[in-house]
Amino acid sequence: MKIDGQHTRSIWVEDDGWSIGIFDQTLLPHRCVRLRLTCVDDAARAIRTMQVRGAPLIGAAAAYGLCLALKEDASDESLERARAKLLATRPTAVNLKWALDEMTAAVRNRPREQRIAAAYRRAAEICDEDVAINKAIGHHGLKLLENIAARKKAGERVNVLTHCNAGWLATVDWGTATAPIYLAHDRGLPVHVFVDETRPRNQGALTAWELGQHGVPHTYIADNTGGHLMQRGMVDICIVGTDRVTAQGDVCNKIGTYLKALAAGDNGVPFYVAAPSPSIDFAILDAFAIPIEERGAEEIATVSGLGEDGRIAAVRVAPEGSPAANYAFDVTPARLVKGLITERGVIEASAAALARAFPERAQAAQSAAAG
Amino acid sequence: MKIDGQHTRSIWVEDDGWSIGIFDQTLLPHRCVRLRLTCVDDAARAIRTMQVRGAPLIGAAAAYGLCLALKEDASDESLERARAKLLATRPTAVNLKWALDEMTAAVRNRPREQRIAAAYRRAAEICDEDVAINKAIGHHGLKLLENIAARKKAGERVNVLTHCNAGWLATVDWGTATAPIYLAHDRGLPVHVFVDETRPRNQGALTAWELGQHGVPHTYIADNTGGHLMQRGMVDICIVGTDRVTAQGDVCNKIGTYLKALAAGDNGVPFYVAAPSPSIDFAILDAFAIPIEERGAEEIATVSGLGEDGRIAAVRVAPEGSPAANYAFDVTPARLVKGLITERGVIEASAAALARAFPERAQAAQSAAAG
Repeated sequence: MKIDGQHTRSIWVEDDGWSIGIFDQTLLPHRCVRLRLTCVDDAARAIRTMQVRGAPLIGAAAAYGLCLALKEDASDESLERARAKLLATRPTAVNLKWALDEMTAAVRNRPREQRIAAAYRRAAEICDEDVAINKAIGHHGLKLLENIAARKKAGERVNVLTHCNAGWLATVDWGTATAPIYLAHDRGLPVHVFVDETRPRNQGALTAWELGQHGVPHTYIADNTGGHLMQRGMVDICIVGTDRVTAQGDVCNKIGTYLKALAAGDNGVPFYVAAPSPSIDFAILDAFAIPIEERGAEEIATVSGLGEDGRIAAVRVAPEGSPAANYAFDVTPARLVKGLITERGVIEASAAALARAFPERAQAAQSAAAG
Repeated sequence: MKIDGQHTRSIWVEDDGWSIGIFDQTLLPHRCVRLRLTCVDDAARAIRTMQVRGAPLIGAAAAYGLCLALKEDASDESLERARAKLLATRPTAVNLKWALDEMTAAVRNRPREQRIAAAYRRAAEICDEDVAINKAIGHHGLKLLENIAARKKAGERVNVLTHCNAGWLATVDWGTATAPIYLAHDRGLPVHVFVDETRPRNQGALTAWELGQHGVPHTYIADNTGGHLMQRGMVDICIVGTDRVTAQGDVCNKIGTYLKALAAGDNGVPFYVAAPSPSIDFAILDAFAIPIEERGAEEIATVSGLGEDGRIAAVRVAPEGSPAANYAFDVTPARLVKGLITERGVIEASAAALARAFPERAQAAQSAAAG
């Protein structure tokens, strides 16, 4: 996607051929600062502190983190240590484990001298696959938006509501939930996006920034607002991303997603989840068994943003001494999900539909469970 | 209620016998600054800029605003001008109109020289009535909390979730939604409150501050969190306030209330609304006809709080140039409300129950509609 008209991805190999470039997303949308990761600890820190975030990008960053570890030491011990370190950074998005499994499979059973090249190759593939997946999600999701537009008067806006950032900054490129939106906009469909602020980390500001850079009309709203908008017929469709979809079609995503799904259900607004297959965890049946990350209370007590002096600063909102709880994700039951927009098409959020669309993944999970 | 152990109300007549004291709630919970209102414009500005806020306190402040206007000029023209000015400050809370109607009834048909004293008398009564109403709401609501406690193991916490501030700062004293909580705490019931931050104005910080001053255990949470908590059985009861209840029992309250009511409904958590009778609008049948205040976009784009230098400052969260929408209230349909906690008891949220509990108000509204 574009920053100031320049095409870019959210993660890349630097010109030196081995170090990894990212944007420090904790400074966006106020500052656009590129960072260079040169060791696995850099990568782990970037994931943990949310300099990179978004389930697919977490996977890509972990893949390159493993490359950086192997570059220093290509032994099995190094691989295991790096894997454990990266896996511990964040608990909820399954893409992290998926990417580390993919990377491990690509390098083990290889002589050490081949491992580094093999790792960088597989990491690059993971990134390219992510882009291809998101493009496919975009094309499948586009049809949903076109169908809505077809029921409207010519030129009338298609109003999408999204939560958090499932945009290109959360992936390698295109985004998951945003891919259909970008495609629709590029094709001249009059699409408008209500962007949930998404406290406490305000990833909605990333989404608004992305949409602004691409010229997509949008409106930034408090997380409390979506229900009101849906009651008043101001939202045609909700599209969100996901950190983990269970084999049953339940969706774990950014805290607050469930509330929007409830409002969509109560008002007959179709609620879709853009779900790339690396975010689908065929090994898990019970969504409430997914570990829900609890982050620091200071993320709730304070808000970070651009101060009047042009510096990024935090202000305290909660009173001194008030405890705060910071659950980062919640579970939207499959019954509230109209469909999963996967790279293989829009499917029902159900065990049967998931197994039909991804038979190889479902079978592998069954074999693993049986073994 | 108490600030640093000192009993106080949220509005009072100063020692000079005529000017009006308030706390500047835009500075709370970080600074506790008292303001003196000396003319109707002061009062109107205080309401409009949310130095005073909360439906019952808006009513009380408007009542004293009318006193200040009459003190300058006790003519009918002055009364009408002041009434119009105060009524235009905020559109959603019906207490504003209710209080102005009460004040007008108290002074009209009186000779001008009696009007000032009559106005101050009626305004003081409105304040005292508010306190009495809230105490009664507290006692009725207390039973709900006691019933929950009785079903728990001894010492186990009763977990309440509340949205916005329907505390003593939103009323003259006690609060509406908080009155049962304060009473329960004072009686040794182990009550704990999840406090929604309530973006964009973060009135949850006021609630957390109040609860902290009173020693009530509480946890400050992002607005996105309540659904997750209810799914996990961490909330026993929701209690919120209201800006206007229709004759049918639909509830207009701070934006985001509806989302919590949906989550409560989906998880079998009883959802109660503390509804003092001045917040009940027997003249309105259709909740979606209630004017929903739209406030400035900067309240969404920025967050105000305490900076690291100890000054209150705003930081920009949304990207520069992103439009924002700021709807201040939403409607929770009566079907999602387990009960209204009124000063006359806990009643069903229905036209029949409201008319039974407040026959004189319902009949007056019918007569007015017929006439």
